[in-house]
Amino acid sequence: MKVGILGAGQLAQLLTHAAYPLGIKTICVNETDYESIAVQTKDCDVITLENENVDVALLAQLQKHVTIYPGIEAVKVAQDRLFEKTLFQSLNIPTPAFAEVSTLADLEKAIQITRLPAILKTRRLGYDGKGQVVICQKAEAATAWDTIGKVPAILEGFVAFDFEVSLIGARNPAGEKVFYPLSKNTHREGILRIAESPYDNSHLQQLAEKFMTALFEKFDYVGVLAFEFFVKGNELIANEIAPRVHNSGHLTIEGFNVSQFETHLRSVLNLPLVQPILRTPTLMYNIIGTFPHLSSEEYKHIHVYNYGKSERPKRKLGHITFLQEDNLLLQKLKANY
Amino acid sequence: MKVGILGAGQLAQLLTHAAYPLGIKTICVNETDYESIAVQTKDCDVITLENENVDVALLAQLQKHVTIYPGIEAVKVAQDRLFEKTLFQSLNIPTPAFAEVSTLADLEKAIQITRLPAILKTRRLGYDGKGQVVICQKAEAATAWDTIGKVPAILEGFVAFDFEVSLIGARNPAGEKVFYPLSKNTHREGILRIAESPYDNSHLQQLAEKFMTALFEKFDYVGVLAFEFFVKGNELIANEIAPRVHNSGHLTIEGFNVSQFETHLRSVLNLPLVQPILRTPTLMYNIIGTFPHLSSEEYKHIHVYNYGKSERPKRKLGHITFLQEDNLLLQKLKANY
Repeated sequence: MKVGILGAGQLAQLLTHAAYPLGIKTICVNETDYESIAVQTKDCDVITLENENVDVALLAQLQKHVTIYPGIEAVKVAQDRLFEKTLFQSLNIPTPAFAEVSTLADLEKAIQITRLPAILKTRRLGYDGKGQVVICQKAEAATAWDTIGKVPAILEGFVAFDFEVSLIGARNPAGEKVFYPLSKNTHREGILRIAESPYDNSHLQQLAEKFMTALFEKFDYVGVLAFEFFVKGNELIANEIAPRVHNSGHLTIEGFNVSQFETHLRSVLNLPLVQPILRTPTLMYNIIGTFPHLSSEEYKHIHVYNYGKSERPKRKLGHITFLQEDNLLLQKLKANY
Repeated sequence: MKVGILGAGQLAQLLTHAAYPLGIKTICVNETDYESIAVQTKDCDVITLENENVDVALLAQLQKHVTIYPGIEAVKVAQDRLFEKTLFQSLNIPTPAFAEVSTLADLEKAIQITRLPAILKTRRLGYDGKGQVVICQKAEAATAWDTIGKVPAILEGFVAFDFEVSLIGARNPAGEKVFYPLSKNTHREGILRIAESPYDNSHLQQLAEKFMTALFEKFDYVGVLAFEFFVKGNELIANEIAPRVHNSGHLTIEGFNVSQFETHLRSVLNLPLVQPILRTPTLMYNIIGTFPHLSSEEYKHIHVYNYGKSERPKRKLGHITFLQEDNLLLQKLKANY
């Protein structure tokens, strides 16, 4: 079996890493040229992606010759915050108040709908907090519109959430579904810093699974899907989806009997899915910007991943999985945030 | 950092798999031609090996330009059962009775030393039970000598052992040493079938570590070393060493905070060693000859490795790590031995 992966970043690499024990071959294709992708993936059973921001026209062309999972419709929606929020709304999945913004006049009208504070976000290509501006007062509207480059946008009402969680689930073509427990996520400067699993709340877990199941059915979805939510009291408010393996799921490698990466490969290859079982409560810490020096003593209960990138502010260089709470090291790392 | 690995079998692949999270590059070189190896490994910090049966003259030539760990002396000894047993004896490590056999006349004399039953083994290139014949009666000597091809051999007295254990340990150039707990190993037809860790016996653990430490010092050893012993009552009787990662250590991937593969990479790159900590008692089952069909239910507490080889009698095709005893599956698998 061979899986083509569009992209060659750490998610593609971690999929490749998970493929090895299963005897599955992968090819990571870091190209946007149809001919080149088609040649490189010609012996693949399926093509998948590590990033939803791919050209859907290209996917449509590829799809004539090879199966692509997840499907194009899910990718299209995940690429566009307005499509995403509109879909959530149509499926009765709670969202922040939102409105489309194509002009400064739209933005001024949108503020009436969302109230302030609100967040102006580009509809497309935003990630890790990029392409977002907070608007606290009406007078800031014009500057905010300039800041995001006057591109198609969405204004979202600010949610005074308690914290954020994400659900990782998967579905295979046979219709089998699996879900991991919710993880509790901490962001700073729009970048995920820490994910902790499990966030144990059966009410919210059921709610999240219900919402994801609605998306699975809507898209006839295949693969891993990540769904980020704001938690406010007993409610989940949908933030965004990612039709792929997700940073908050890296802790599944060591924390579970089956990782999100193996689950994704199993899904897209229509292998039987394995019910995830938590081994031990687990915390993932993202290594951002600079790589910490760790003593051999500090390696005791952790697993370190170095993606092999050069250091740069706000860049994800790797991550550390903590299998046993090691407050001293964690405190030291947090101090460098 | 980059490590050249002589060999491209599953041990080289599993070293490569462990290298990825650490951001270490590897190149697996499946060649015996000096020029080709030298070209392929020219940007490596160190060269190591997955198999002790390499040409030591070739290693000596390579060593002029690049560090090789473990050193040539350890490899030479591990290649030859007579050198091995003689060294054990010189270090006061108990061995079975043994004698050198170069002719049929030697064999007849050797039988006086070892008594019968005894095992005639080729000095070199024996593995997985190959190159061995049991001799129960004097009259079988000539046939046995024919069977092993009249090559330089060793006769070893049969040890009525209780079971077999192996110790995996490592040393880095800075002199740091680490040891895993003993694993209890079950062979059939000379092939390792099951390894279980930990075999919890502090007396035997200390004894095994003392013997391995003697070898570390003798060779100024760097890398993972595996040491197989027979257990008889309260005693350890040395069987053989492997100057490399070892099949009985595959369970360290999931069973420990640090795998034998990561430990080997850390050792040969002179990184600080991480003290192995057992996560959970773990059992490894080798997949030999044919690949079992496993249901998704049976995947619950196991990890399956498929080395991607075609099926062939007695061939190691993969292994399964059991993190929680799952007797039903294990019984099913054992029934196919």
